[in-house]
Order: sequence, then C-alpha cells, then structure tokens
Amino acid sequence: MAASQKVGELSPQTVIRLETLQNPENEDGPPAKKSVSHFKVEGILRESAREKSIFVQGKLDEQEAIIILEKTPITQAVVPELLLSTQVLEMKNDIYSTYHLQPPPNLNEIKTTVICPATEKHFKKYLRQEVFLIEETEDDYQSITRPYIITKGLSVEWVNNILEKKSEADRIIFDDPDPQFGFILIPDFKWDQKQMDNLHLIAIVYPPDLKSLRDLTSYHLPLLINIREKGLKAIAKRYNIPASKLRVLLHYQPSYYHLHVHFILLDYDAPGCGAERAHLLSDVIQNLQINSNYYRKHTFTFPLLANDALLSKFKEAGRF
Amino acid sequence: MAASQKVGELSPQTVIRLETLQNPENEDGPPAKKSVSHFKVEGILRESAREKSIFVQGKLDEQEAIIILEKTPITQAVVPELLLSTQVLEMKNDIYSTYHLQPPPNLNEIKTTVICPATEKHFKKYLRQEVFLIEETEDDYQSITRPYIITKGLSVEWVNNILEKKSEADRIIFDDPDPQFGFILIPDFKWDQKQMDNLHLIAIVYPPDLKSLRDLTSYHLPLLINIREKGLKAIAKRYNIPASKLRVLLHYQPSYYHLHVHFILLDYDAPGCGAERAHLLSDVIQNLQINSNYYRKHTFTFPLLANDALLSKFKEAGRF
Repeated sequence: MAASQKVGELSPQTVIRLETLQNPENEDGPPAKKSVSHFKVEGILRESAREKSIFVQGKLDEQEAIIILEKTPITQAVVPELLLSTQVLEMKNDIYSTYHLQPPPNLNEIKTTVICPATEKHFKKYLRQEVFLIEETEDDYQSITRPYIITKGLSVEWVNNILEKKSEADRIIFDDPDPQFGFILIPDFKWDQKQMDNLHLIAIVYPPDLKSLRDLTSYHLPLLINIREKGLKAIAKRYNIPASKLRVLLHYQPSYYHLHVHFILLDYDAPGCGAERAHLLSDVIQNLQINSNYYRKHTFTFPLLANDALLSKFKEAGRF
Repeated sequence: MAASQKVGELSPQTVIRLETLQNPENEDGPPAKKSVSHFKVEGILRESAREKSIFVQGKLDEQEAIIILEKTPITQAVVPELLLSTQVLEMKNDIYSTYHLQPPPNLNEIKTTVICPATEKHFKKYLRQEVFLIEETEDDYQSITRPYIITKGLSVEWVNNILEKKSEADRIIFDDPDPQFGFILIPDFKWDQKQMDNLHLIAIVYPPDLKSLRDLTSYHLPLLINIREKGLKAIAKRYNIPASKLRVLLHYQPSYYHLHVHFILLDYDAPGCGAERAHLLSDVIQNLQINSNYYRKHTFTFPLLANDALLSKFKEAGRF
C-alpha cells in the first residue's frame, strides 16, 4: 500500500486473517483472547540492539507467557517505497546526514512469537545468561547428559505434530516418508519466509529414536546422505538457492532432542553457526565414514548458559 | 500516538522538524531537495538480515550517494504500545504461535544515513562481495590450492619478523622458542587490548614449513597440545580469562599460510568463527589421534569471496 495510506486501512487479506484470528471457532487461529494485545509485560528476559529483538516475560490471560519481538530484515524490494516515508532530520555534517524514517506499518513489520503457556524451562532458555564452554566425553554423555535428556528434556510434542501432519502441514516444503531414512523439510519458525535474506529450514527425521549427533553411527549414513541430497534439491527447486549458498549443519547440544538438520543461507549470519556448536553435515558424514563410532567416542566442546540445568549436572559431577 | 492514529498525522514536533527539513534557508537541515525521497536506487552494496540493515547505492539529485537503512532496536518502553498494533496471525502449533505486528510509524522507525556526494572509496568500503561455499578434496588441494599458495608465494614476511623478534617483540604475551613444538602468543592486530570484550590472540608456530591444517599429521600433536596448554595458561595468567571462556580454533582457508591458532573470547561474536571456516583445536587434536592423515584426506568445505583468486582457480579446474 502507498506510504500515504492510513494505518487503519488493511489489505483485504489482512482483514480476512484478522477475522480468523478473532474467531474462536477457527482451527487455524487461536481464540481471540490469545491476541497479544492482552499481554501484560512483567519483565525483559533479554534484548539485542544488534538484532533488533527483545524477549519479554509476562502474562497472557492469566497464563505465563513469553513474547519474542524481532524486527524483519529490510529487503531491496521495499527500499524505494521506504524512502517515500515521513522523514525526520537528525543531523547533517559534511557529506553525512542522518534521518529517521517513519514507514507505513505494512512496510515495517515486527515478527512476533508467542510461547503460551510458558514454563520455567522456557524462561531459562531465553533469559540472557553468561556462557561457558563445556567438554563432554563419552563417559560424561552416558553418566550426565543422557540421563538428563531422558528425565528433563524439553518436550518435542510440536515435532511430533509436524511428523504426524497435525500442525504446519501446509508449511512442509518436502516430505520423504521413509520411516528409516525419511525426513520432513520445513521452514524454521524463526524464518517468516518473506525474504530470502535469512532463509532457514530444518530437516526433521522420521526415526523417533535419534536424539542428537551422539546417536549417529555409520548405519545412519543413508539417512544423512538422503537429507543432504534431497534437502538441497528441494531448496534449489523451491527457492532457487544452490548448495554453494547453504550451510547445512547440526547443533550439539541441539535446542531439542529429536534429530534435525539446519539449512541456513550462507550470507545469513545466523546465531548458532559457530564452530563451538555447529557441525557441518558434510563433516559428520565423512567422520562416520572414517569411524562408525566417531560421535559415540568424540569429546564434544559446546557452550552452555550459566543457568542451564545441564551445566548444574556437570557441576554436580565435578566435571565443571 | 495511539496505534489507531493515521500515518498522515504527525506529532507537532515532527511537523516542526519537517518544516526545517523543507526549508533551504535553515542551517540545521540540508535543502529540501536533499530529502531521501528523491533517491534513485541503483544497487545494493550489502544487507544484513541479522542486523536488519541494508546499504543502498544510487543517485540523489544527480549526485552519487549511499543510503544506509537500519531498523532501530526495540526498547522495553515501547513494548506495551507495540503489542496493541495491528496483528496478523502466521501460524499456531502447540504452545507456539507467530504473528506479524504492524506498529504505527512512530514506534517503528528506521535509522537512515546518507553519504552524498559519495566516492569510489565509499562504495568499496560498503560493498559486500558475494560468498560461495567450496568443497576441496585431497586432489583439489594438490592440483589447485597448493600450487596456488606456492606460486602466489603469499608473503608471510610480517610473520617472520615476529618470529625473529624484528617487530612487535614488545607485544609478545608468551614465547616457547622450541623450533619443533614452540610458538609465539601475540594479540591479533585487530584487537587493540583496550577492553576484554573482543579479546583475540594468535599463536604463531616456529616450524616454518606448516602452511595450514592440510599439513598437519599426528607428528604435530605435541605442537598442538603444547599450544593449547601453554596458550591457555598464558592467557589465564595475563588476562584472568579461563579456558571455558575461550574459543581456540584454526581457520581453513587461513588468511595467511603460516600455521597459526586463534584464541578468541567466547562472548565475542567475531567474524570467521562459523563452522564453515573455523576448526576447534580440540577437534583437530582428536581427529589426528584417530587418523594421522585425517587432514590430508579430508574434504574441506569453506567460503570464498567472488573476487578471490583461489575461486577462479577452482573455476578454471571445472570444480566450481
């Protein structure tokens, strides 16, 4: 819509989406009372001036909730229209001048993620904390990490919903239903798909018993090679992004313990891509080809937040 | 102003600022014709999806110009009002739901920097080269990369000056002069040492014949273990930073072909720490313990800039 258009005026599509949002019967949307307008701010878990994001703790209709606000990337397509926005001069010095643009709402959205009801685990996950590097030997995994995952791991209900097509079925980019070597490729929910700049998809494997890199042996090479080949092909077909533009990697520790592989645009300086947490799929495949037990035996180095329950387990065991 | 207010309606202050902006006589502001509305977009120099910024090249009233747009951080103060904005539901799954907020312009500004007239120097400064991921097999290294390194004779004169104490001798943090297993620990020249926030040191090895990871075998394990142990000890002593706060890693491709190890503060989100280029020293040591020829045989994945001479060599060889 034109820069001169009123905030109050919504595109027809927006109006429809809002109606579904406000209709409690509608299965696609939550009941209207879950609209974020009712959110009561109680505190800030973290904020990033660099990433233009803020993690807010509070209450949504008496339930504990977290709302994550993050501004959306600026794409080339909207620049000309952005430059027509209301302008406020800030300063001028020699060849440099700075303004504040006040673009119309539709050109300047904020991605909003709601977690409700949220538990202590979620608050801890998002609370800004000091970070420490941990070394996890094979024995540490068996005696500390694995028992912790089994007893305290974050729920992967939402992963099962995706694999059983109970949720997000319309967002699936590619589906190889093979129970042993199959996977679903779906946009990561941090990516709004409105621009390619921060393209981020995840391949979620069908085998239910694979928690992380630690569980992989050479038996799983066909699964991993399948994900690399079909995942890259599906992304090339759907988004016209070649393999030479994609980081394909796994996290250790992962943020949830159902094996998944990340496909992230190389140009996107995404969090979690650091060598201390990210493992390139091509390296994982080569290491398993060299030694079937590579990841069973490997001593992993990874970062943990100061308040991470797993870190306390390492402390209790005298390993940190 | 309230979320329901029109874009067209400006706060009195804004109106005043705009008048000064449009008044050529006003010394605080540039002439009205310099308003960014007149900017003609000619190309994108770079953009960051993570930082929500874009660097645009173009013309402002027939003059070469650069406009840098960057969304402003989200502050706690505006969160409650932001949450009253127009909401569009994107998806809902289990406890997670995502929306797009469309806040009123004044709550959602874009910082705009204009450089006009801009020169070639400015364009070069902001232009981001396209990056591609390359796969380098053992054969590729022998037939493409190694000849390139040798013929180009990439000078490491400044490295030799350090090792021979001809320069920067006063900056040396630690020196183990053993010709086979020794190294010099010195602050990376990008680190000014004025604050700990971006602590970055490098260990430069004494053996002159080690170009990169590719040259390492199990024979070099004592060297690598020596660097890890004495390097970490020296940094703990000098800066009081423990091992759990340090990424210790090697780059492949490195920026110069004399083997060196980086010690970088974990909290410092430094460039070059991504899994596609950085290799943790602890992983390197483990891999050489498993297989003395691990890095001779390994197929490396790494990024190269579009204008990198090595990329052209890979193209000539039909490997990219």
